[in-house]
Parts: sequence; C-alpha cells; structure tokens
Amino acid sequence: MLRLGFDIGGTSVRACALDDERMEILRVETRPFPAGGGWDGLANLMGEMGRLVGAPLGLTPKDFRLVGVGVPGTVKRDTGVLLSACNLHVDMMPIADMMRERFPSADVAVANDADAAALAEYHAGAFRGYDSALLITIGTGLGGGLIVDDRLFLGGRKVGCELGHITLQQGGPMCACGSRGCAESLCSASWLLRQGRHAALGYPMSSIATRAENDPMNVTAKLVVDCAREGDGIARQIFDEYVENLASLISTCGYLIGPRIIGLGGGVSNAGAFLIEPLTERVRARARKYMPEKIVAAELGESAGTIGAAMLP
Amino acid sequence: MLRLGFDIGGTSVRACALDDERMEILRVETRPFPAGGGWDGLANLMGEMGRLVGAPLGLTPKDFRLVGVGVPGTVKRDTGVLLSACNLHVDMMPIADMMRERFPSADVAVANDADAAALAEYHAGAFRGYDSALLITIGTGLGGGLIVDDRLFLGGRKVGCELGHITLQQGGPMCACGSRGCAESLCSASWLLRQGRHAALGYPMSSIATRAENDPMNVTAKLVVDCAREGDGIARQIFDEYVENLASLISTCGYLIGPRIIGLGGGVSNAGAFLIEPLTERVRARARKYMPEKIVAAELGESAGTIGAAMLP
Repeated sequence: MLRLGFDIGGTSVRACALDDERMEILRVETRPFPAGGGWDGLANLMGEMGRLVGAPLGLTPKDFRLVGVGVPGTVKRDTGVLLSACNLHVDMMPIADMMRERFPSADVAVANDADAAALAEYHAGAFRGYDSALLITIGTGLGGGLIVDDRLFLGGRKVGCELGHITLQQGGPMCACGSRGCAESLCSASWLLRQGRHAALGYPMSSIATRAENDPMNVTAKLVVDCAREGDGIARQIFDEYVENLASLISTCGYLIGPRIIGLGGGVSNAGAFLIEPLTERVRARARKYMPEKIVAAELGESAGTIGAAMLP
Repeated sequence: MLRLGFDIGGTSVRACALDDERMEILRVETRPFPAGGGWDGLANLMGEMGRLVGAPLGLTPKDFRLVGVGVPGTVKRDTGVLLSACNLHVDMMPIADMMRERFPSADVAVANDADAAALAEYHAGAFRGYDSALLITIGTGLGGGLIVDDRLFLGGRKVGCELGHITLQQGGPMCACGSRGCAESLCSASWLLRQGRHAALGYPMSSIATRAENDPMNVTAKLVVDCAREGDGIARQIFDEYVENLASLISTCGYLIGPRIIGLGGGVSNAGAFLIEPLTERVRARARKYMPEKIVAAELGESAGTIGAAMLP
C-alpha cells in the first residue's frame, strides 16, 4: 500500500511516499522549516509537500489513506497531540487533527521521531526479524525508540519511552533538564565534545589538541573518537569512559525492558566495531542474562525518520 | 471462579484458594520450605498443600483449573521455567511442568514473586483502577513488578523487569551482583541498615547509637527511619539520601516506562507519609510530565504473593 511519511526536524521538513510492500521510497521532498506562520504555516507546508510528493505518482492529497508524522518531542500517541518539543518551541500542538484537515481520507498517526526511526529499523533495517528492539539515537541530545512484542512501546503514559533523562550517575554532571547525571548528559555526542574540548585545553600535547590546532572550538565528537582509534592516551581515556556510560544505559534498559537487540543511531555509531565491540563486552559483564543478543549500528540513517513515520498508521 | 495460588519463599511455602469474583481468600496453608528432597520434594509438598487447601472446600487437586506460582527468581513466563533464584539455589527448574503433573486439569502459570504481588495490587489492592503500575518491593534486596495496559509487563525477554540491577550511580557502592551503584545497593532496606550501622559506630552521640545501645548489630532499617522521624540529625541525613536514591529509581522508571502509579512494598513502606511525601516532591521535581500520578504504600502485605499467584493464569 502507498503511505506518506513526514519527518519534522528543527531546521527542515522531509516527506516521503513509501510503497510498504517493497519497503521502497518512491519520492522524497525536503523543505526548510517555515519561519513564522506558526502551526498553520507548518501544516500548510506539509499539505503542500503531500501534493508535491503525490503529483508525479498521479495522486492528490485526498488519495493518501495512511499518513504518519515524526516529530522531535513528546507525543501523546492516542490523540496525536505534541505535548512539548524544546527545539520547535511549541507545546500542545494537535498535529494529528491538523493533518486530518489536509489529508481528509487518511488514517493519521503521530510519534516521537526516535520512535519512528525505531519502527523503520524494525520494518526495513537493523531490527528486521526481532520482536523487541531499542534504538538509541545519539546526537547533541539523546533519544530512544522501543519495540516490544512487534509494536512500538507506548508505556503507561502512551508517550513512548524517554531515554534522555533517566539517572545513570546521581550527583553527576548537570543536565539541561536541571537534574544531574542523566543519560543525555553522559551518553550524548555533546559529552564527547565537552570532554574533548577540556582535553584540548588541558593537554596541549595530546593529539586532540594538535589536530584541533589548539583551538577547542575545532574539536568535534568525531575527532575525539578518531584520536582514540589512533591510540592517543587522553582520547582513549575519554572514549573508555564514554563506553562505560553507554554500557550503564544499555544494561539499565536491558534489566528494565529486555530488548533483544540494541541499535545505535547518530554520528557516533559510525565508529563501528571500535565502539560496538568493547561496548558489547561491558554490557555482557554487567547485564548477563538481561544482555541483549546483539548491539549494532542502525542502518537507515537520515531516511529512518520518514520511513518510520510512514509506517506509523 | 476458584483459583489456587502458591508463593514460594526462601523459608516457607504458602498456598491459598481464591474466589476471583469476590477477590476473597477462602483458605490459606503455610508450610516450611522442604529441607532436601530437591525439586520433587517441593513439587510433592505443593501437591499436598493443594489437597489440604481444597479438601475443606470439597475439592481434589483435579478440580483446580487455574493454578499459579510466584517464586523469588527470574521466570521465563511463556514456558514457566525458573531460570535462576539465588536464594533457592536452583537454576532451570521447570515449575510449570512440575505443577501440571500434580494438577493435571489446570491452566498453570508461573512468575516472579514481585510480579505476582503487583498483579495482586492491581486486582485487589493499591493499583485498582489503574491500567499501568509499578510495585517496588523493598527488603534485603529490591524487586519490582510492572503492569502496562492492564497486564503484567513481560518485556522483550518474557521475564518481566528486574529493577534491582539498573545503574543509578556509576562508580557507586558495590552490589552483590558485582556492578556498582545498582538500585538494590542504594534503595534496599539493607542500604538503610548499613548506613545506620556506620552511624552507630561513627556518631556515638546520635540517637541511632544510643537507641542501639552503641551496638551496631542492634541497628535496623526501622530504627534509622524512627530516629529520622524523631528529628535526629544524622538519621535525617541518611533518610534524606535514601529518599534521593528512591527518587532516582522512580524517575528513571517514569521516563522509561511511565507507570501511572507507583506502590512501595516491604517494611520500609510502613514509614507512610513521612517517606512518601518528600519522595513524591522529589520525583515531581525530577520527572515532571513523566511523573506518576501517585506514589503510595502497597496494601496487601504478605498476602500479595499468593493472591497474585492465583491471578496469574
């Protein structure tokens, strides 16, 4: 069947038409996030993008029967209301209702973007063949999407799970949310970046400092991982600590929820086996029989959001 | 309908006959855990207890159609195999099969005892009217049972959730499992006991020390809570830290799973409002919209295990 998926990001909106029998993307459109215009501006843009995606396929918005939206925020799944989204500066946005106006014959569903990405990996990527799975999306922040019993897990509150603010280290580093030692403050790429910048300042002889030309602003999370891979002592120490942080996160999720496979998404997952091998070893030592069968890199990259959104309804 | 529930403990086995329409316990039998005799000795005892519970009701073991067993260990729910139980010193015990031999007409189900207790609170106790709930059983160790969508949550591995060994404080106190900073090492009654004993040694003028007659072996978790309630500075400090530890555990579960209500079981929950009020306040500050609607003391006490076991099938 033909499906329409939207991935709303902080700077752009992507739409795709998806054939769910072959799991094939037929058309993609990307537009910058509309400046001004508020909710209606965004909804109008999405209606227009649906028209643009559909036209070459001989379809009008009325022909779309399944429309899904992924959004970087907390979504009440049964009502399709976006409860909050820091980066979009909106609260209580009734996205499902807005979409039904533009796509009147459609079955509409809305979810958090990491949930959508997890669903995409389940249908078409790293999670194929697993009935339970957790995707951890590692970027400036930290997100997660969880599959249990072949379905997106909604939890007791019907908003899915929120990995970013579970406590891994009481009294640990301050998180943007106001608590200390949250998963986001210890496992995001920002943690690597912050540690790398400190190292560039504090250890001018380290490869991190030299490769950043002694300017901490030139440090990236990737640079830290690259230096660790090349054997720089300071970078290695930072990377080891990062692996330990991620192992705490994964073993906690293993004990509480028991997903059979864990996927890592975002730039950090490009570290590949260099990250995944020591991580698997540490999680195994920690979580034992609650250990996931496999930890892998996610496969679908930036397409995951739209594919998963399209598969929501 | 008439149901039979067993609660296997480290020192005793309880059986009850339950009328599930009125949620009324009709008969209870308790026997010491059989010394020697292995699995068969235990299974024979349970068969015999079923006979004893049934006889005054005019029933033979063959008449029981629904038989459930709660056990202090990790249970694979779909097969009814006890995978491991530290306190019973057994591994891979096929409890469901053993029960089917003794109760040949019965639909048999086996679960972790904290899962069974959560199910009891859902049907007959503190969780009535909630479709999602988490029971935290606080004793020497720490256990948990989780209801999501009006059913026991089995998770990806079909063994339920294991609260005790999620990481709350990387690098924190050593846990019996070999990791550091596990929930069990920070939130069990043993934590209160340990801190209380240290205080009795280190602060001979504190009420903890004087009420324990300066013998750390006289300290109990309850004594620490009592001294905190009476305003002793050292006890208060320990109790505050304990509340913080529990708040980390509950907010982590809130973010990951979102249960609408949290119940505290075990002796510590007798502290009542003195514990629950500051705990609720801290969890609210931390977990915000992932905050459970309510934190309460569990209601069913030691009956929870057998009632919940009986409700499993």
